[in-house]
Amino acid sequence: MSDGMKNLRIVRILSERAAKTYDVVIREIPVTILLNDEELVTLMCSPTDLECLAVGFLYGEGLVKDGDDVREVFADEKRGAVWVYTKSRKREPRKRLSQRLFTTGCGKGFTFSLTPDDRRALMVKSPLKVRACALSALMREFQKRSALFKLTGGVHSAALCDPEDILVLKEDIGRHSAVDKVLGECLLRGIRSEDRILLTSGRISSDALAKAARGRIPVVVSKAAPTDLGVKLAKDLGITLVGFARGSRMNVYAHSKRIVTG
Amino acid sequence: MSDGMKNLRIVRILSERAAKTYDVVIREIPVTILLNDEELVTLMCSPTDLECLAVGFLYGEGLVKDGDDVREVFADEKRGAVWVYTKSRKREPRKRLSQRLFTTGCGKGFTFSLTPDDRRALMVKSPLKVRACALSALMREFQKRSALFKLTGGVHSAALCDPEDILVLKEDIGRHSAVDKVLGECLLRGIRSEDRILLTSGRISSDALAKAARGRIPVVVSKAAPTDLGVKLAKDLGITLVGFARGSRMNVYAHSKRIVTG
Repeated sequence: MSDGMKNLRIVRILSERAAKTYDVVIREIPVTILLNDEELVTLMCSPTDLECLAVGFLYGEGLVKDGDDVREVFADEKRGAVWVYTKSRKREPRKRLSQRLFTTGCGKGFTFSLTPDDRRALMVKSPLKVRACALSALMREFQKRSALFKLTGGVHSAALCDPEDILVLKEDIGRHSAVDKVLGECLLRGIRSEDRILLTSGRISSDALAKAARGRIPVVVSKAAPTDLGVKLAKDLGITLVGFARGSRMNVYAHSKRIVTG
Repeated sequence: MSDGMKNLRIVRILSERAAKTYDVVIREIPVTILLNDEELVTLMCSPTDLECLAVGFLYGEGLVKDGDDVREVFADEKRGAVWVYTKSRKREPRKRLSQRLFTTGCGKGFTFSLTPDDRRALMVKSPLKVRACALSALMREFQKRSALFKLTGGVHSAALCDPEDILVLKEDIGRHSAVDKVLGECLLRGIRSEDRILLTSGRISSDALAKAARGRIPVVVSKAAPTDLGVKLAKDLGITLVGFARGSRMNVYAHSKRIVTG
């Protein structure tokens, strides 16, 4: 059984008849992220890819600049902590973090009110174009490969793709932590996220768009719904936003010019 | 069109054919909660029932004792803020809030490592028993009444019930904010939550259990999966935890004695 799951005794009821049996559930642990030995935040998450989670979270918060900025990462699941050391040894005053918005999403999210300057700085300019049928094929493959979810019904998935294939796929009980893990793996393994596609199983709210913008990802696709603020940010940040991607259907909420049809 | 939704122009693609049309999406706004004029936290949420959200959130955090403790509540959607004044005029040092865990859930959640004393204090002792078929009927009704979700595919629902009927039902883009709105409405309208049932559309992680415990709610039911920590907290807090409640099926993960079958 994988680290992310646990087998529990349960009572299963079907049409008023009860039977004792076992069921696999997803694990959830508290993980504290320390940046240059300062405690920043504690997330509730699935205990897999903790180094990626921490680096991706810090990148999303703007506290890690790029892969080169990461000097050392060390995760200890038993102690529920990940230590990240950066070259710049920047410290983040706790106060600044606590003043940020907490998002709708899973785990504490970065993000909020982008200033006009932020928007200009984060604007995603990419020549990427992708056929609608290629996106549909990616989503099919994405759902096929989301292994933990099928076993436990308890997690979200996120993936970085090019139009032909899935490059990185991660899972977590939190939809934002799944995206953090993808971005963290890209940074740690030197995988470029620019000009690529982000798939997510979760609804697309404002914070998911902001994370995509940090990673310069021009296309975000979900089988679920966006929020109005997610759509607004996608428009402002130059990101193509696709929701309800199911079978050969999809809704394009922003910058549809990157999706090729017909 | 309700306050919670917005109509947007989109491009709908079906089998490689694109057509311009309109789609309804759920709204998402930042809302800052102020307790006795001190800014506590900003949540991303659906702009409905903001007074309930604020009071329920503070109750979940242990910052509002009960309905009598609430002196005044005032929400201003345009300014994105809710002011709550309590009789005790207790102030919460920002530092304490920022040190708490951020949960997997939607919006910043309360919760976390309960001490043995917390567990004893929060232990839910209730004689409630409910037939499995009554729970199945409640879940059917719950899904039928979740109106926003059906239109937009973008929100979670939560409800407080007795075995015969749904008493309070609320919706939000965040699964925890939906629960906060239910608890807040109970406090503001003097509806007792003890010896009753909490239904939720979302996965059941540790924070949902902690909120139920604050409301002394002995039975928590979801159509979705629990996490292992959610199950552990349910066991420790004396709460009956039912997951995957779909049709006449359900899995009981903790304290199955309250569910009557056969």
